[in-house]
Amino acid sequence: MQIAIALFDRFTALDAVGPYEVLQRLPGASVTFVAEKRGEVRTDNGFLGVTADAVFSEVPSPDVVVVPGGIGTSKLREPGAIHEWVTNAHQTSTFTTSVCTGAEVLAVAGLLDGLKATTHWSSYEVLEKMGAMPTGQRVVENLGERIITAAGVSSGIDMALRLSELLVDETAAKAMQLMIEYDPEPPFDAGSVEKAGDEVMTRLLEYLVDKT
Amino acid sequence: MQIAIALFDRFTALDAVGPYEVLQRLPGASVTFVAEKRGEVRTDNGFLGVTADAVFSEVPSPDVVVVPGGIGTSKLREPGAIHEWVTNAHQTSTFTTSVCTGAEVLAVAGLLDGLKATTHWSSYEVLEKMGAMPTGQRVVENLGERIITAAGVSSGIDMALRLSELLVDETAAKAMQLMIEYDPEPPFDAGSVEKAGDEVMTRLLEYLVDKT
Repeated sequence: MQIAIALFDRFTALDAVGPYEVLQRLPGASVTFVAEKRGEVRTDNGFLGVTADAVFSEVPSPDVVVVPGGIGTSKLREPGAIHEWVTNAHQTSTFTTSVCTGAEVLAVAGLLDGLKATTHWSSYEVLEKMGAMPTGQRVVENLGERIITAAGVSSGIDMALRLSELLVDETAAKAMQLMIEYDPEPPFDAGSVEKAGDEVMTRLLEYLVDKT
Repeated sequence: MQIAIALFDRFTALDAVGPYEVLQRLPGASVTFVAEKRGEVRTDNGFLGVTADAVFSEVPSPDVVVVPGGIGTSKLREPGAIHEWVTNAHQTSTFTTSVCTGAEVLAVAGLLDGLKATTHWSSYEVLEKMGAMPTGQRVVENLGERIITAAGVSSGIDMALRLSELLVDETAAKAMQLMIEYDPEPPFDAGSVEKAGDEVMTRLLEYLVDKT
């Protein structure tokens, strides 16, 4: 079972690594990080470099496609190499998936037209303009179309557990959950806009301004 | 605020990337991935390469030390370069932390003698033999000693949120939680040995045998 995770400049590391960590131990799983060029790709802030081991043309028909998001998707709004790869790979994939603003890549690739989908909470409007129907669910399944989209960053872990169930079975998915000890105990309950509230949002926006 | 995340051959990616993703957007945060040699380091199964941008001697006194775990820690049970770095860095760090079997590195570095600590559920005995007192908590704080250890793999996210609160304040930590949309909805409740049960454990052990 070949799992291909797409990389591009300024992707968000956890979007990619969450699903990778869940899926890599499934029976027969082989994970390949793939990009337009082979070699190092840097994350959104540049603090982390990750290796793309293959170019898109070398992984034309993976069983599972995972497209992470990140600030870099703002440079991927015109059709290009990654979109062409996603469109073609989806013809034969078992599942084509995205995390966070990776949904925009699927949308530009023409996969989300008229479909319910999700993305990072800050990007619903962009995704809607691209023809999808954004929802606030953490994981949105379009099983007929073999497309699953996940919300922001950490949601890729939840998505990949469900994907493990679909690819193998529920026991396999639970085994992956146990392996990564995913028994979450966040010390706060601020993981959504509604729960976080105004003070937190104000602070977050301050930090984003400082970083950009 | 300099955050140093240690890398070594066959580390577990999510152990490192979970805390990285939470901490990197804190005000003034700079994250450096550091190892014995500069360049690419591969994860436990070899599927993923991550860049070490600096060697240990170049980052002698970070504010925060994060040591991930992974199968590779089984080769780090004798004192070596990483332990020497941890011991020295801890003299001036604000917090020295580990995720998963990264606790073993802290233990060999002499930091956990007689302290409560945690690690991956499969490794309590090893950690106990190294002089720590393993507990089943997800995040174990020794604030007097400025040491925090987290349980398996995904627990580094919870740990890093608490660390954000300690380093900045609660609002900052919540802003990080919102940014990574950490509002977990695992589709199953199998994230601990007790919750997963025998069938899941049997399957997990089958997969581990196949992979090694």
